[in-house]
Amino acid sequence: MTYMPNSGNLSSQRILNAQQMLAERNIDLAIITPGINYRYLTNQRAVALERLTALVITQSQYWLIVPELEFNQAREFHNEVEIISWRETDDPYSMVQARTPNSKVIALDEKMPFFHVEKFQKVFSAEFLSFSPISDAMRSKKSDKEIQELTRVSAAINAVHLSIPEINFTNRTELAVAKVIESMIREEHETVDFVIVASGPNSANPHHQPGERIIQGGDVVVIDIGGTSKSGYCSDCTRTYVVDNPDPEFVKDYEILSVAQNLGVSSAKVGITAESLDKQVRDHLIANDLGQWFVHRLGHGIGMETHEAPWLLAGNKNVLEEGNVFSIEPGFYIPGRWGARIEDIVALSGSKTLNFNDFDHSLRIVH
Amino acid sequence: MTYMPNSGNLSSQRILNAQQMLAERNIDLAIITPGINYRYLTNQRAVALERLTALVITQSQYWLIVPELEFNQAREFHNEVEIISWRETDDPYSMVQARTPNSKVIALDEKMPFFHVEKFQKVFSAEFLSFSPISDAMRSKKSDKEIQELTRVSAAINAVHLSIPEINFTNRTELAVAKVIESMIREEHETVDFVIVASGPNSANPHHQPGERIIQGGDVVVIDIGGTSKSGYCSDCTRTYVVDNPDPEFVKDYEILSVAQNLGVSSAKVGITAESLDKQVRDHLIANDLGQWFVHRLGHGIGMETHEAPWLLAGNKNVLEEGNVFSIEPGFYIPGRWGARIEDIVALSGSKTLNFNDFDHSLRIVH
Repeated sequence: MTYMPNSGNLSSQRILNAQQMLAERNIDLAIITPGINYRYLTNQRAVALERLTALVITQSQYWLIVPELEFNQAREFHNEVEIISWRETDDPYSMVQARTPNSKVIALDEKMPFFHVEKFQKVFSAEFLSFSPISDAMRSKKSDKEIQELTRVSAAINAVHLSIPEINFTNRTELAVAKVIESMIREEHETVDFVIVASGPNSANPHHQPGERIIQGGDVVVIDIGGTSKSGYCSDCTRTYVVDNPDPEFVKDYEILSVAQNLGVSSAKVGITAESLDKQVRDHLIANDLGQWFVHRLGHGIGMETHEAPWLLAGNKNVLEEGNVFSIEPGFYIPGRWGARIEDIVALSGSKTLNFNDFDHSLRIVH
Repeated sequence: MTYMPNSGNLSSQRILNAQQMLAERNIDLAIITPGINYRYLTNQRAVALERLTALVITQSQYWLIVPELEFNQAREFHNEVEIISWRETDDPYSMVQARTPNSKVIALDEKMPFFHVEKFQKVFSAEFLSFSPISDAMRSKKSDKEIQELTRVSAAINAVHLSIPEINFTNRTELAVAKVIESMIREEHETVDFVIVASGPNSANPHHQPGERIIQGGDVVVIDIGGTSKSGYCSDCTRTYVVDNPDPEFVKDYEILSVAQNLGVSSAKVGITAESLDKQVRDHLIANDLGQWFVHRLGHGIGMETHEAPWLLAGNKNVLEEGNVFSIEPGFYIPGRWGARIEDIVALSGSKTLNFNDFDHSLRIVH
């Protein structure tokens, strides 16, 4: 069955932008499966299951294909767009091919799972490339409304960090502390995306998953947390804590990190390359003998995904633009000893650089 | 850096099974990215982010590749396997290719996102196919321990359904009821995977997302809920409720559905084809004039994913085997009026068919 009604809430302006970029790149067809691009373009959170649901975009048209059992749901949501539905025993991939038989260059959603990719590669004789250059270009330039949403969700995660000193750390496991923080994030967000609580030597693992280690006096604790708001925008903020009394040697290195992080925030501006910002912060750490322990890139864009373009690392010669929103998160990680990271989200908005996490950067004491 | 220690907790028996299937199918290489297959084979929940993490399996070897910033974490977890790490400015895809340069047939994790697929398709000159025939064959034959885990998590969701009549439905929105149920699922599971509360005419949408509709006396309410246990196994169970007094016409159809669903449970056994079980239940609904409204397949396998092999639908001539665990969930959906579904998870274990959700199948009254 097919349904073509009159008005709806699909992001038709965004789809028009995508179509223009398809034309500029000589791409005949884009196929977007449920995920962030799908939500960005349709305003709908479709569930990514095994049955094919897709937004199909050519240079001049667009339509949805959905399993029959999701047709009513899609029709309720989208009353402006043509919706094709397929039955359990149909081949939806061939149905897409039959409607766009002359497609020679096809962009696939960069997150499309291989079981869909494989089927499209079978039914189309075409060149396949990633939709990500288009989605990156669109999604990395945030509108004022998006900046507002990111400001809000960042304020939510700031509130969590500001309450963390009220939690008891001493003699509790990382996991126990993480569960308390998780419930605090949940109160302020629609979903909890990640809770890193890395204590003592575990703080030297940037992506440590909280475990059974018991936190003790003198421990460094790196806390990197984030969630997603109801409107679909993500927070991400790291502070480094210490239980009771910090080691003076750690404090010295932490102060260097703090200066480096601040340098990153104050240097972020429209017109410089992504890699130059990474280099500027990294050089400061190298000059202070911490460079070898800064094992990851400076930062990542953030929006409807926690990690998205622009990527701030060596080799990325893209120029930072108006509307970019990204993390500045240098760290140092000394295996077997300790680690530290400070992370803020900044936005290049108008002539200003906004810092959404502009609260206390000092080493924070907990008990 | 590379690390090769002595003992660990990787599922080496499962990997050996996979290697044997690679050999039988003349596949040179399998690349498994974080997700359920990765967890099934390594016992580790790795996070799927933009940086490549993968389990690489040839017919005679296996190893992990991880980003440098996750190396310590991986090393702690896996001390039996070779781990290759890559730095932010390395090309991890070329690193995999350089270690397995003669691979001509490569199986990719069926859930691998296209941005990884694209890179592997560039660095290898090879035929690419899906790992799913192997993962399906392995994961659909549950061990006794897995059956036990699924029994446990099913008992957890049963407890939620048994408490649902204590919730007030009348004059509350679907969303409000869904939030109460969500917190009940969370108490019994590690994660809440889905909460369908479909009331009145919304019950005719099999995958309805709970919304602002206010539930009223006489409404049918289809409630399909599931979560994942700490051990990683999923629950999934549907019951149909009615607020106060059901419409006699609905009751009549519901009784037919209940007989059909029971027929499905009692007919499930080793040796019959997946499609024949679907047909048997469908035929009963067709004979009673409900067949046209049963718009989806009879069921799906369940394990570490809510939806996995075996798939019970027309066209699937695979024979049901010892160790299969799957849903039996016929329904009828009459647009604009109402719908109903009854779903149990059954296991083919030993000579018996176990029903993990063997509690009250009658139309359940709420207020």
